[in-house]
Amino acid sequence: MVRTTAAEAGESGVRLHDPAIRTFASDNYAGVHPEVLLALADANGGHQISYGEDAYTARLNEVVRETFGERSETFPVFNGTGANVVGLTAMMPRWGAVISTATAHIHTDEAGAPERVSGLKLLPIATPNGKLTPELIATEAWGWGDEHRAQPLVVSITQSTELGTVYTVEEVRAIADYAHGHGMALHMDGARIWNAAASLGVPLRAFTSDAGVDVLSFGGTKNGLLGAEAVIVLDPDRADGILYLRKLSMQLASKLRFISAQLLTLFEDDLGLRSAAHANAMAQRLRSSLEGTPRLSFSQATDANGVFAVLDNAVTDRIRERFRFYDWDRAAGQVRWMCSFDTTEDDIDGFVAAIKEELAR
Amino acid sequence: MVRTTAAEAGESGVRLHDPAIRTFASDNYAGVHPEVLLALADANGGHQISYGEDAYTARLNEVVRETFGERSETFPVFNGTGANVVGLTAMMPRWGAVISTATAHIHTDEAGAPERVSGLKLLPIATPNGKLTPELIATEAWGWGDEHRAQPLVVSITQSTELGTVYTVEEVRAIADYAHGHGMALHMDGARIWNAAASLGVPLRAFTSDAGVDVLSFGGTKNGLLGAEAVIVLDPDRADGILYLRKLSMQLASKLRFISAQLLTLFEDDLGLRSAAHANAMAQRLRSSLEGTPRLSFSQATDANGVFAVLDNAVTDRIRERFRFYDWDRAAGQVRWMCSFDTTEDDIDGFVAAIKEELAR
Amino acid sequence: MVRTTAAEAGESGVRLHDPAIRTFASDNYAGVHPEVLLALADANGGHQISYGEDAYTARLNEVVRETFGERSETFPVFNGTGANVVGLTAMMPRWGAVISTATAHIHTDEAGAPERVSGLKLLPIATPNGKLTPELIATEAWGWGDEHRAQPLVVSITQSTELGTVYTVEEVRAIADYAHGHGMALHMDGARIWNAAASLGVPLRAFTSDAGVDVLSFGGTKNGLLGAEAVIVLDPDRADGILYLRKLSMQLASKLRFISAQLLTLFEDDLGLRSAAHANAMAQRLRSSLEGTPRLSFSQATDANGVFAVLDNAVTDRIRERFRFYDWDRAAGQVRWMCSFDTTEDDIDGFVAAIKEELAR
Amino acid sequence: MVRTTAAEAGESGVRLHDPAIRTFASDNYAGVHPEVLLALADANGGHQISYGEDAYTARLNEVVRETFGERSETFPVFNGTGANVVGLTAMMPRWGAVISTATAHIHTDEAGAPERVSGLKLLPIATPNGKLTPELIATEAWGWGDEHRAQPLVVSITQSTELGTVYTVEEVRAIADYAHGHGMALHMDGARIWNAAASLGVPLRAFTSDAGVDVLSFGGTKNGLLGAEAVIVLDPDRADGILYLRKLSMQLASKLRFISAQLLTLFEDDLGLRSAAHANAMAQRLRSSLEGTPRLSFSQATDANGVFAVLDNAVTDRIRERFRFYDWDRAAGQVRWMCSFDTTEDDIDGFVAAIKEELAR
Repeated sequence: MVRTTAAEAGESGVRLHDPAIRTFASDNYAGVHPEVLLALADANGGHQISYGEDAYTARLNEVVRETFGERSETFPVFNGTGANVVGLTAMMPRWGAVISTATAHIHTDEAGAPERVSGLKLLPIATPNGKLTPELIATEAWGWGDEHRAQPLVVSITQSTELGTVYTVEEVRAIADYAHGHGMALHMDGARIWNAAASLGVPLRAFTSDAGVDVLSFGGTKNGLLGAEAVIVLDPDRADGILYLRKLSMQLASKLRFISAQLLTLFEDDLGLRSAAHANAMAQRLRSSLEGTPRLSFSQATDANGVFAVLDNAVTDRIRERFRFYDWDRAAGQVRWMCSFDTTEDDIDGFVAAIKEELAR
Repeated sequence: MVRTTAAEAGESGVRLHDPAIRTFASDNYAGVHPEVLLALADANGGHQISYGEDAYTARLNEVVRETFGERSETFPVFNGTGANVVGLTAMMPRWGAVISTATAHIHTDEAGAPERVSGLKLLPIATPNGKLTPELIATEAWGWGDEHRAQPLVVSITQSTELGTVYTVEEVRAIADYAHGHGMALHMDGARIWNAAASLGVPLRAFTSDAGVDVLSFGGTKNGLLGAEAVIVLDPDRADGILYLRKLSMQLASKLRFISAQLLTLFEDDLGLRSAAHANAMAQRLRSSLEGTPRLSFSQATDANGVFAVLDNAVTDRIRERFRFYDWDRAAGQVRWMCSFDTTEDDIDGFVAAIKEELAR
Repeated sequence: MVRTTAAEAGESGVRLHDPAIRTFASDNYAGVHPEVLLALADANGGHQISYGEDAYTARLNEVVRETFGERSETFPVFNGTGANVVGLTAMMPRWGAVISTATAHIHTDEAGAPERVSGLKLLPIATPNGKLTPELIATEAWGWGDEHRAQPLVVSITQSTELGTVYTVEEVRAIADYAHGHGMALHMDGARIWNAAASLGVPLRAFTSDAGVDVLSFGGTKNGLLGAEAVIVLDPDRADGILYLRKLSMQLASKLRFISAQLLTLFEDDLGLRSAAHANAMAQRLRSSLEGTPRLSFSQATDANGVFAVLDNAVTDRIRERFRFYDWDRAAGQVRWMCSFDTTEDDIDGFVAAIKEELAR
Repeated sequence: MVRTTAAEAGESGVRLHDPAIRTFASDNYAGVHPEVLLALADANGGHQISYGEDAYTARLNEVVRETFGERSETFPVFNGTGANVVGLTAMMPRWGAVISTATAHIHTDEAGAPERVSGLKLLPIATPNGKLTPELIATEAWGWGDEHRAQPLVVSITQSTELGTVYTVEEVRAIADYAHGHGMALHMDGARIWNAAASLGVPLRAFTSDAGVDVLSFGGTKNGLLGAEAVIVLDPDRADGILYLRKLSMQLASKLRFISAQLLTLFEDDLGLRSAAHANAMAQRLRSSLEGTPRLSFSQATDANGVFAVLDNAVTDRIRERFRFYDWDRAAGQVRWMCSFDTTEDDIDGFVAAIKEELAR
């Protein structure tokens, strides 16, 4: 594992872990950006109306409208699964179905929450790179009016994707046009939306509201927050009842000011973009340092903060004795290496050295 | 509203609210105890395995076992509704029903989450003081084996109750015995469990594990945390699958170390008990200062941190122009005045003066 | 038990039961009216489009429109619980709640189907006679816009009620006015709607569409059908998506022609009214024969086909050795005696004799 | 459409359809076998305990145990979707997932009932012929113990399949062994189980209980019943709570004797096998009459009562002006021609002539 210097580690009698250790396992292994902790302290003290009528949530609404457009509505929630399920549910009557990739987080990593909490039906589609296209969507987009078929009413895409790729603005727009043209709405799982923004080099709204996304799961936790996400409704005509759905889905924080205060930091001084751009850069450094290494290949483009590599499982296991990360597809020898806001250049260089060393053995 | 001194207020460019203002509306209008913010900072830095395999969650499990008994299992979650729904669901097959009071939070204030998220059926019973008894439970505890009746398999009580009352150890034990004797399990909604402990002057386990409670919704947020609760299974033979249920109910935090670190503070240096005892004492001060005041009566015992008073609605409205609090039952002229960990004696005295002033007009 | 003559019993090698025996347990212990079996034979033969595009369902729609009004829409389903759940679900978004009596079938006898299948929240209200009033409804009709409270959006009444009483036309209208005036819709569980019609002596529409009922669970099985009910939408502005909800709730028959053909019989030659009027008359005969009998009282009015009597449990048990029926409230010594389309005057007279005999011992 | 002779058509004043017309659209366009109507009449008359404690249901249980094994338990339900959802739900805790083909009825034609009614998660797998294999199952059978993944706990296969193919005894056994070896249970959707039995020429138990199937959706409606299916538990250790699940899933008929009486007919005088064998033979006649016809091919084996053919859509449309049937995959020019218990040789011959005629134009 990667160790930072003692000076960065802080000091406290009740610290139970070694803050000098970092990994390549997940961007949610990382902790909280220091600016976020400060914001929590600022939001503290005195009484604020609970459940969202506080000053921080009000301010967050303003900032989101400035960022995504005047029609935007913001509903802070606890986590990404919560954002996805609340958002998707608000987009559909009880008979709706969601078209997604087969690698979508909502299909693979949410324990069936969409089905179990809201009774949503998923129509997953296999893709080579984690990205839907109108052509792929068309294979499941049919059967409207036939009560035997769960009605495909929402398309859900992930930006950046679970495979580390990023939709271009044009790709999002093509999907939105297709969806809207067929009476469906477009949901974006933006758990890593800041990484996509940093990758594309365009404002957030360019590939969301302006590209036709209707409801956005807006991510923060994977980008240095303690725990804060939001459902952002970009087109209020395409979603209904989130006020109620958030509560009944157990995603409404009582002391909501502290969720909103975290989210606000992402927009202040560009913290969200800075953190994501750094994570992306570290992933690029990792990839470019390894390009051309024998017995190693890459299975996906490295558009954001994750590197998907293919190597021998035996080598993988040896590397893992030194650095923690996850297999992605053991049968295919595919691994995922994630960078986060606190990954350092030294971390990358040490990791690269270890990988090359083990590959060369 | 109540104002504290400027010195307490802290200072920051991005503070959007006045930290000098306090209310009697709810214990979750209050912010975060300073010791909790320090604990978050301590838990920060470096990488920790997400979703619960971190050092803070491990330590929390130890502390809970020391507190509630060796068989205890701890599952930190986001909020109280989440704790209740995950805990209750784990106690029942899909055909179970929960016997509760008609004033139970799970029936009145969770937007139907038990029904909607988990398909639970509630069997609410009217009570004079928010407390069930074996006799009351018996009115709904019947029909086992009859597939037409949702099977009563769990009794849920709230400690301290939604009406500010507290079950004695013996009362809890009598309910547990009755429930177990009829093949039912006992759930306790302990959103304000620390207030009950402070009120009873006994260890937590005296009225939970030792009294026969099987699953506990362990509260922290209303007692000075930022946002942290837990499902604590006291009898693992009475609950199943919480690992999965927590995730699929969208109550699993990725950076779980920060939830667990908050919960740990409650046990350290008795912060939980200190905060709750203070809140209770402030409620007592409020009540005793008002006892005997003409045109004012009290509808419930003041066992914990809430005072339930009855007065003329017109008077209520005038007081509310000066201090924020909630009507409990407008038709009956009943109001609820809540104290929290940060309520000061001066707050109480000022509030009392205002109430007396308005009553005397 | 009651025995009919051999001649009525029919003859067949594979008959496994004694068709001469009748009870006072339930109107669904009875079999099928002969005219219904004939209708099934008529509907048989050849191919008809499945799932509702058949000639019998088309005709049923016409008949229902003639009966209940031109805006009526008919959705045949399998059973009463299905009709209730599909109908109620169509009347509410996911955050809605249903106000009903505490004795409503949807609360007591559907195993929690409304909660489990559709996530509906019930707000049950205690009543003396199984009937809601605007005053009673008002105790739960509040909290709109407050996301913590399941939103009361539907009132459900049962006609005739589970206690054998019948709402007058004026009573239904008062409830409808109250509900509509508060933004709620009105559902009627009409499992025994024909008994109510026979009791009131008015056309079906007088106490349904004309009185402001929005969605009706239209019953047939308890009135001599083999198994056929329907959701009838009286005000299509108050219900949405039943086409889909019926299918996803597993209430859509493939060979729907046979469900519709059964329902049609109720309207032909007034079979529905004839059967119900007969059952009601038998209940009246039972009651009037017993009025004034010592040690026996009646706990409810006998408006329809059920008699609710109070007597000593020991006597009840002796009577039950001779005739099958159900306890209603054992603690109160209350029993329910039901009559059906095939109950005979001799059945009543024999039952009365037995009751008097056992009471006199 | 196909016309039968006038003599077969019966006569009645209220017949609303032409019983002489038959189609190739679906086996549930057909009506009821005359022997079934007679059985309904036999079961009629007198009172029988509702909800399953009647003589016909008791006898059905005996017959099923004789057929499938002594441990079998039978729960009659209304329809196939109901049987599937009740059965699958009983096999899994709330965190389970079902592995099925992507063409499985539970995934494509039940409007999402498994997800919506029971919160089940489906893991669909693409297949060439509607049949799973251990190798295919393995692609989704992983992740046990990882709470982020819906736990694969049940494999569901359809026999005969939605594509008209039939699993051999050995194929079922291989799947059962694989499932059991990985801690999963095996469900069979037997909506057309009699067609499979007729095709394989072995007793029902050979490819169900004896081959390792744990829970069976036992079909009747598609094989000449009016409307009757059953969940048959073959291994009671693999299913729990069906008594309750059937009721809360709205699949419990009050006059259950008439559902059971229908199901009984299938076992009497081999009616189930006779009807299915006839339907299969008609499909074989159709296929063999068309084999070798230019511009026509077959996309699936014709193991049971459905023929899947590929031809030009323009030709399809012309044929459909004369005979009703469904497109299966319009894009691929694939159609489905279904035979049923009442299809006649003349029907086939007329249909073949029409197809050849239109193909030759």
